[in-house]
Amino acid sequence: MNRSLILGADVGGTYVKYALGDGDEPGRWTGEVPSDPASPAITFGRLAARVAELLPPDAGIGAAGLACAGIVDVRTGRLGRTPNLPGWEGADLAGLMGAAFPGAAIALANDVNAALAGEARFGAGKDSGEKDDGERVGSDLVMLALGTGVGGAVMIEGRLLVGHRFGAGEIGHTVLDPAGPLCNCGNRGCLEAYAGSRGLLAAARRRAAAPDCSPGLRALVAERGGELTTRDLAESATASDLDAAALFREAGERLGQAVGNLLNVLDPDLVIIGGGVAAAGELLLGPCREAAARIVLCEAARSTPIVPARLGSSAAAFGAAHLAATHLAAIRLAAEARERS
Amino acid sequence: MNRSLILGADVGGTYVKYALGDGDEPGRWTGEVPSDPASPAITFGRLAARVAELLPPDAGIGAAGLACAGIVDVRTGRLGRTPNLPGWEGADLAGLMGAAFPGAAIALANDVNAALAGEARFGAGKDSGEKDDGERVGSDLVMLALGTGVGGAVMIEGRLLVGHRFGAGEIGHTVLDPAGPLCNCGNRGCLEAYAGSRGLLAAARRRAAAPDCSPGLRALVAERGGELTTRDLAESATASDLDAAALFREAGERLGQAVGNLLNVLDPDLVIIGGGVAAAGELLLGPCREAAARIVLCEAARSTPIVPARLGSSAAAFGAAHLAATHLAAIRLAAEARERS
Repeated sequence: MNRSLILGADVGGTYVKYALGDGDEPGRWTGEVPSDPASPAITFGRLAARVAELLPPDAGIGAAGLACAGIVDVRTGRLGRTPNLPGWEGADLAGLMGAAFPGAAIALANDVNAALAGEARFGAGKDSGEKDDGERVGSDLVMLALGTGVGGAVMIEGRLLVGHRFGAGEIGHTVLDPAGPLCNCGNRGCLEAYAGSRGLLAAARRRAAAPDCSPGLRALVAERGGELTTRDLAESATASDLDAAALFREAGERLGQAVGNLLNVLDPDLVIIGGGVAAAGELLLGPCREAAARIVLCEAARSTPIVPARLGSSAAAFGAAHLAATHLAAIRLAAEARERS
Repeated sequence: MNRSLILGADVGGTYVKYALGDGDEPGRWTGEVPSDPASPAITFGRLAARVAELLPPDAGIGAAGLACAGIVDVRTGRLGRTPNLPGWEGADLAGLMGAAFPGAAIALANDVNAALAGEARFGAGKDSGEKDDGERVGSDLVMLALGTGVGGAVMIEGRLLVGHRFGAGEIGHTVLDPAGPLCNCGNRGCLEAYAGSRGLLAAARRRAAAPDCSPGLRALVAERGGELTTRDLAESATASDLDAAALFREAGERLGQAVGNLLNVLDPDLVIIGGGVAAAGELLLGPCREAAARIVLCEAARSTPIVPARLGSSAAAFGAAHLAATHLAAIRLAAEARERS
């Protein structure tokens, strides 16, 4: 059997997105299978069955990478707190993936870390990490994923930062104003409370209730009710509703404060902004760039690129595949070194 | 000549502090020579003359490390913006140090980076960077130096983070509230505007001008005038002046917001707080720890130690010596590897 194929999988509360291919082209086959929020074993069984259908004759999986929301202990292979997969807490992800894909090298990552790994290798960051003289030094990247909440990830010299207690990358919960709006975590003024869709929609509803709100925004909020999305708001803003545009400007300025703070601390090559809210594009990124540049102390770092993600919802599966391929390459190198000595 | 000695030097606007010794005991001889704010060559000449007086017969300098305020381009060896040493801007620090100490391996660092290197090797961080099973993995550390302004430094896996454009570590200019007090950098609400001595003294003067200020604080501010120090304020706070204590509590809470944000982004082993303002001790660190713990999302990271620096004003010279010793060791290893092959 030729174990040349690499699998990347990204587990969410509803689906597992997968990408099957090789190290350079991870998305030869892509798709999804339903996830079982109560059982990782059942979920990985479904994934293994699908992969078995896709595999060409005599081909095998050399490495499998898993991206998972929550606190992933990459040392023990176990999953910690994970609000969207309550039945998975404490699961031995590495062991279960190994059982589902026997013989494959297994890599694990938190989902936003995996998304950053994907963007770094195949997406918005693929040209980073190079010095002026062409030497590859490894990328210093930051990613923010603006979904319902706000996830984050940091890469230093090409390596994902997991932190001493696997708590790194929680950029969504950096506090930008202790008197700001309430966040889902219980604190006030977290980035997530401004730039996650939950926070942005709450701001829209507050605005719509104000007596001087534009009739357009008020009507939109009333009409869409609980179905209101940030896409609706972006459409209104693009159609010149000033109040809707102001919502994105305020969220963008707070995003810029958070990004400017990160530039002051880390001075990365570039910052990647992904997630559904980021689909608002320049409505959000324009004010973000301006606010960030005002904050950055180091003059040369003021023009650090702040760019949209490129891989969309495939980033984490692609990144998991890449992490698995890298892990397999390291195992093979170590084996070769042992053979030579 | 036996080149076994290591020199570390920390250049400030008035003095160069030096430490001369070996890799394990960098402070066998310590002292200072006046710095010339207009000329690095004259300054290094004075330092070389002093070192020549101290050197035992037949002993030589194997490596010399220089810590310098400002943007230090560790790749070219040149100094960028450096407000306290205006005549040094653009200087070829590596070349001038090499001329002053011929034959020595030269290492350079920004002063707060060097202080963190010193604390990591000899001070508050010397027991960090170890896994539960005793394996050394390299420290993940953050340092804040609360002086007139606020400097910062980040170490990831034992290596100082300099950033893509040498702009990393400017933690003092992370913005904690865009409507906060004016900072020296032109922005509002930077950490420095709350927890640097300039900011803290300005807050004391604002408080003293308020009609409901405590008589003790008002009298202290009037009496000391332009000579007021954060030590005066700390003495008043310790002597139960509630307004003076409140100043440290507010500064400590803002410091805690900044530290909590860093814990959420980096999840380091521990955080080291140094500089003159930190001499206020628990007046400042108590509220800091409480505020930081409230912000941190990852439960295990909420108890991350936030500890005072231990080396005082010697940290940067010791750290520069350590960086120089490490650089020399790397050069020797590379030479040995070449000989073997």
